[in-house]
Amino acid sequence: MTQHLTSFLEIDSQSDFTIHNLPYGIFSESNPTHKRVGVAIGDWVLDLAALTAHGLLKIEGNQDYFNQPTLNAFIESGKHNWQYVRQTLQNLLSANNPTLRDNAELRTLVLRPQNAVTLHLPIHVPGYTDFYSSKEHATNVGTMFRDPKNALLPNWSELPVGYNGRASSVIVSGTDIVRPSGQIKLPNSERPVFSATRKLDFELETAFIVGKPTSLGQPIAIEDAWDHIFGMVLLNDWSARDIQQWEYVPLGPFNAKTFASAISPWVVTMDALEPFKVRGPVQQPQPLSYLQENIANSYDIQLSVEIQSPKSQTADVICQTNFKYMYWSMAQQLTHHTIAGCNVQVGDLMGSGTISGPTEDSYGSLLELTWNTTKPLTLANGEQRGFLEDGDRVIMKGHCEKDGIRIGFGQVENTILAAHRFDFQETEEVSYETV
Amino acid sequence: MTQHLTSFLEIDSQSDFTIHNLPYGIFSESNPTHKRVGVAIGDWVLDLAALTAHGLLKIEGNQDYFNQPTLNAFIESGKHNWQYVRQTLQNLLSANNPTLRDNAELRTLVLRPQNAVTLHLPIHVPGYTDFYSSKEHATNVGTMFRDPKNALLPNWSELPVGYNGRASSVIVSGTDIVRPSGQIKLPNSERPVFSATRKLDFELETAFIVGKPTSLGQPIAIEDAWDHIFGMVLLNDWSARDIQQWEYVPLGPFNAKTFASAISPWVVTMDALEPFKVRGPVQQPQPLSYLQENIANSYDIQLSVEIQSPKSQTADVICQTNFKYMYWSMAQQLTHHTIAGCNVQVGDLMGSGTISGPTEDSYGSLLELTWNTTKPLTLANGEQRGFLEDGDRVIMKGHCEKDGIRIGFGQVENTILAAHRFDFQETEEVSYETV
Repeated sequence: MTQHLTSFLEIDSQSDFTIHNLPYGIFSESNPTHKRVGVAIGDWVLDLAALTAHGLLKIEGNQDYFNQPTLNAFIESGKHNWQYVRQTLQNLLSANNPTLRDNAELRTLVLRPQNAVTLHLPIHVPGYTDFYSSKEHATNVGTMFRDPKNALLPNWSELPVGYNGRASSVIVSGTDIVRPSGQIKLPNSERPVFSATRKLDFELETAFIVGKPTSLGQPIAIEDAWDHIFGMVLLNDWSARDIQQWEYVPLGPFNAKTFASAISPWVVTMDALEPFKVRGPVQQPQPLSYLQENIANSYDIQLSVEIQSPKSQTADVICQTNFKYMYWSMAQQLTHHTIAGCNVQVGDLMGSGTISGPTEDSYGSLLELTWNTTKPLTLANGEQRGFLEDGDRVIMKGHCEKDGIRIGFGQVENTILAAHRFDFQETEEVSYETV
Repeated sequence: MTQHLTSFLEIDSQSDFTIHNLPYGIFSESNPTHKRVGVAIGDWVLDLAALTAHGLLKIEGNQDYFNQPTLNAFIESGKHNWQYVRQTLQNLLSANNPTLRDNAELRTLVLRPQNAVTLHLPIHVPGYTDFYSSKEHATNVGTMFRDPKNALLPNWSELPVGYNGRASSVIVSGTDIVRPSGQIKLPNSERPVFSATRKLDFELETAFIVGKPTSLGQPIAIEDAWDHIFGMVLLNDWSARDIQQWEYVPLGPFNAKTFASAISPWVVTMDALEPFKVRGPVQQPQPLSYLQENIANSYDIQLSVEIQSPKSQTADVICQTNFKYMYWSMAQQLTHHTIAGCNVQVGDLMGSGTISGPTEDSYGSLLELTWNTTKPLTLANGEQRGFLEDGDRVIMKGHCEKDGIRIGFGQVENTILAAHRFDFQETEEVSYETV
């Protein structure tokens, strides 16, 4: 059992940011270019650059890891430093350490109210890969788009299917999403039309961040893979289903997903997640030996999605699920990614794939929740949703709770803006209902 | 007609690197960390950092664009500077300019023999996208892997199909290729085996390099697209066909291509390519208006592939084709890439897709040249090839020639090394012939 720690700071029992968590992010105050590393604790941000300046955090070699616009330099400095900083901060914040507790002036210098800072993309993402590791999600999509009798393709059970995403459009929570436009093939027309997407969707995912690089041609053995993972974030892998369906055969999704992939601003470390480890689903058939692990290789992370209509003051929870349903583990994903020789870099973002659970209210996308609009959702204010409408806000949350200890991811939320108007808008608008 | 320029340097009439070309690269000498920008001219490299130090190249603002390990800073400085540097260098190298011509000491300081320098990856590649824009290639692959009657999928003629590649494994010519391993599904077995690929292939491509970035949500109009392109390189998009065939449905190629994508070291500018513009193939059906251009939007670039067996002293030409066969133009590719809102960054690499021509000796991959091993190639020394063997060297070359003016890309070449031996090698080796 994990030791309960308490902080001298007043932290709500339902806070995601307890002393057990200490996730890393990038923040600024009035000067938006002065970005630096902070750690979330309760309603505050602990300023690691300020802590260092005041001699409370000393890293070997005196590298400036915290006056940085991304976490990459700190992450690259290695696991030894990750653990040293975590221990140092837990000690500084603990109820029985007087250093900050009894020094109001020092506290003012190193702690900022979270609601007074701006949070930025925490990572420079050199590469973004998205997996497809929920059996329930892959089965649902295969049933709708291909063949219900052979919903799961033969390769799905043998390897963690994944594809390269677009790193340039990875954005932080809070960034607005312009409804994308592109080619859409309507069922009864011979040729595609150019239009704003009518099937704008979210995908509830988590993603892990690579903490230790490899060289080209150097596969990661499954037993070493966990050492290459720094932490996790929530990921909304924004998708335009109608663009996707027209474009994705044979080379995979492209414009349907490259317009935005949003992550939560706080990176929760694997050390913080350690108490919440569980065994993943039994894998049948047993994977080839390069993918075999016989350990608790999943995490009990409760996840939810909320939608807030622009006509409503409150958000509706429309999905509740759990990371533990994922079939393929993060170690299996990373090992498979490198097995043919591909190198990984610090900051690489590896999405889980949409996380759907076994029940209809645990599906991680509107495509599945509304079964491609055939079963629209009814919101609390009476509005219906097949896919997302302009002005909708989508909020994803995640947390772990066990033995009275809680840690969480905060949230990733974005609001939909109306599509661009193009000069060459060539086809008439087709109303949503006709699609 | 282009004006013929002559240099005071002796340049072979068959050289790729005439005064009309002036491609940019990154080189170092004895100290491998002192990387800097050079321009290829005949058998020499013109050192732009040295030129600047000696006051012969003055860029506004005195930014240090040339003492850099990549071309990105120079490219990002904008088209005005690209043109200014090109004009300055053509002037300095011309037969009637005495500055370098009559100053042997100065020449020694700024010109290095190409065979005495090391060439590096010229670009930091933030994103790598690969298109699929040869109709002949798409038809050949569709015929072999799917259905000869419907070889070309319906979306192919409507949009430049593309997918995200893996940027981390973009490598420069000369880097050895370790034969990748992974999951392969043999025709008569129920489950995949883990094995080194038996179907290692090249793909003859060119790629363009983005020179001007965009913001998220800002599509590039087709008439502006050419302004966003800095130059071109040769690209060998290494592929493992057996891994590809098992993994690629439904999300596209992944491990089959992420192990290496090799580019030529010299970036040929669009300014140098200008005299070789031609019209691309007629597009039928006429594309949607966002993709329409009615100009010479292709280039007459002669391309070839050679294989050198480790048992041979010479290389065999096995493919001769031309860039002008490509159905979708680079402007159409870039416009389509951004139409849904995806942003591009300076240095982004955009592969053409395999360049196959109309005849059997103009196919840009062994998959097509040997029709998936059913028509093996016979090399000059009598050896046969279905796919590549360990020790094989693959060399791709490209050049343009018109009105007595020649410019070229040099080459991209790599040699195949034997696969890793894995501890967990679980399945017996299956000989090549049985696949």
